[in-house]
Amino acid sequence: FASSTPIRATLFPGDGIGPEIAESVKKIFKEAEVPIEWEEHYVGTEIDPRTQSFLTWESLESVRQNRVGLKGPMATPIGKGHRSLNLTLRKELNLYANVRPCYSLPGYKTRYDNVNLITIRENTEGEYSGLEHQVVRGVVESLKIITRQASLRVAEYAFHYAKVHGRERVSAIHKANIMQKTDGLFLKCCREVAEKYPEIKYEEVVIDNCCMMLVKNPALFDVLVMPNLYGDIISDLCAGLVGGLGLTPSCNIGEGGIALAEAVHGSAPDIAGKNLANPTALLLSGVSMLRHLDLHDKADQIQNAILTTIAEGKYRTADLGGKAKTTEFTNAIIDHL
Amino acid sequence: FASSTPIRATLFPGDGIGPEIAESVKKIFKEAEVPIEWEEHYVGTEIDPRTQSFLTWESLESVRQNRVGLKGPMATPIGKGHRSLNLTLRKELNLYANVRPCYSLPGYKTRYDNVNLITIRENTEGEYSGLEHQVVRGVVESLKIITRQASLRVAEYAFHYAKVHGRERVSAIHKANIMQKTDGLFLKCCREVAEKYPEIKYEEVVIDNCCMMLVKNPALFDVLVMPNLYGDIISDLCAGLVGGLGLTPSCNIGEGGIALAEAVHGSAPDIAGKNLANPTALLLSGVSMLRHLDLHDKADQIQNAILTTIAEGKYRTADLGGKAKTTEFTNAIIDHL
Ligand SMILES: CC(C)[C@H](C(=O)O)[C@@H](O)C(=O)O
Ligand SMILES: CC(C)[C@H](C(=O)O)[C@@H](O)C(=O)O
Repeated sequence: FASSTPIRATLFPGDGIGPEIAESVKKIFKEAEVPIEWEEHYVGTEIDPRTQSFLTWESLESVRQNRVGLKGPMATPIGKGHRSLNLTLRKELNLYANVRPCYSLPGYKTRYDNVNLITIRENTEGEYSGLEHQVVRGVVESLKIITRQASLRVAEYAFHYAKVHGRERVSAIHKANIMQKTDGLFLKCCREVAEKYPEIKYEEVVIDNCCMMLVKNPALFDVLVMPNLYGDIISDLCAGLVGGLGLTPSCNIGEGGIALAEAVHGSAPDIAGKNLANPTALLLSGVSMLRHLDLHDKADQIQNAILTTIAEGKYRTADLGGKAKTTEFTNAIIDHL
Repeated sequence: FASSTPIRATLFPGDGIGPEIAESVKKIFKEAEVPIEWEEHYVGTEIDPRTQSFLTWESLESVRQNRVGLKGPMATPIGKGHRSLNLTLRKELNLYANVRPCYSLPGYKTRYDNVNLITIRENTEGEYSGLEHQVVRGVVESLKIITRQASLRVAEYAFHYAKVHGRERVSAIHKANIMQKTDGLFLKCCREVAEKYPEIKYEEVVIDNCCMMLVKNPALFDVLVMPNLYGDIISDLCAGLVGGLGLTPSCNIGEGGIALAEAVHGSAPDIAGKNLANPTALLLSGVSMLRHLDLHDKADQIQNAILTTIAEGKYRTADLGGKAKTTEFTNAIIDHL
């Protein structure tokens, strides 16, 4: 029965190169006979007052109902009176953890060759509170908010993730030597959760030192968990170690088991519509989504086909130094399924 | 006359390996006949109520009077009722800019081979305001403060530095897409100053993207200027690219032309007193101090001797994979003067 009842999942192709790379995902998933039925939603052309953004209420409802989705790049239109698309999704769907596996791709050479780490970022508070004001002319303040609830929640997710995925160690990244109360609370929550997972090693690393260690020897790290801004910074740094945001998957986890996987690179309007884009980040994000759905066979099958195609090097898109079109790369992956 | 009237400079040997590496600096500076007379100050053994820290009032007065100093590593004693030593120095001496040149050392191989950049960090405000409080149980806030005055001051320093040192470009690092008011003000100030330096290129780079670009291709950057916390993170990241904090100099610039150069690595209590420490960071910081004093001949002479000694590789300390003692490395540098 399982294979005859498809799972409904929301798909936001996004803009710029979004539709092309989403096409690649749809094609490969179809060829791999993944039991998913996509429900496509596009960013609206006007502000939806119910979301205060260009995202329609219906598209958010779709993720809420399906509990699972995949998102391409979306550029927030410039102008006032509306919220950033990414932040709207995070807030409205309460996507509290952003998970980014980051590993060296076999055959694709960078300066680093055995990166294998996971960054887990608190995704709802911290420096992203949106609370800023001018006190007197020339003096502005912004508020960083750390709560026990959100810190416990993301720490819990990180340790659970480490356990389920057979990871050995969780490192909490912080600047509690300066922000003793906010980052101190974050650490306190991590320590509390760590006690419940005696089989997982736990350590605390100051963010500046962490960045230095990451560029010197990323193999020192396993699972990293951190407040919002540090996660923003470190997840991009780590992506850079293995080739950039075009190659790394991302998945947002929300309350009640929602998972919205997403390619976090830009929408690259300069090459949009030219069949030149690299769909790898969106594809691997799709794979993350499959794993969230416990469809590990399909996930393995597709992931292996992607990695083999990149490793062989015959069909690579321009960003990886190759000449393949998006569709050629896609077909090569299909041949490897 | 100039050579017969020595310049008085404050020296904080610091603790842990501090005294040993300060010894190395004194010896090399003496052999190079640098016209400096050191005024040594140590961290006190009790809290000085006038500084609210273990730093004595007299030692701060010494820097204020000499206007120039060199500082080894200092570990702030644990406990309440006093301020961090580093933060006390920054606040009390109004050390508004932290300047860190970061370049690949010839002959010392890392994953990167043509790094040559300068990070300039605002050093007095931002996330380092020290203002934090618990709102209700489980909710804590900390305040980031950005002022027009401090932003203009550090931007001015960065552009001036770029001009004087023949640098081509200044990149302002920010997260104004999220912190529109605070980081927005910082950018606004940078833009204002940029207009006064039409010969220097100016660009703005979001911090997460900056970190990704730095690990992929650091040669993309020249001079980077940024608010306090981003500077803390990025300067350590950059140090990591060329080998770590044991090799990179740092200099703090204060109002009225004060310069306090410093080795920013730790005090390494585990190897203290064993003649194993690498004095390079403190030596190169001393060189920065000489440049600040316009003693460029002496600065070049010493810097070349350090770089040649490291490049030859015959005498390297343990942290660089060698077997040389601190004194052997020091003597080798003296031989190359
Ligand atoms: C686009 C931007 C608001 C966003 C963030 O800062 O979170 C991005 O950098 C990310 O990591 O998803
Ligand atoms: C020790 C710590 C308070 C300090 C800072 O955060 O500024 C250090 O990391 C630095 O960069 O000098």
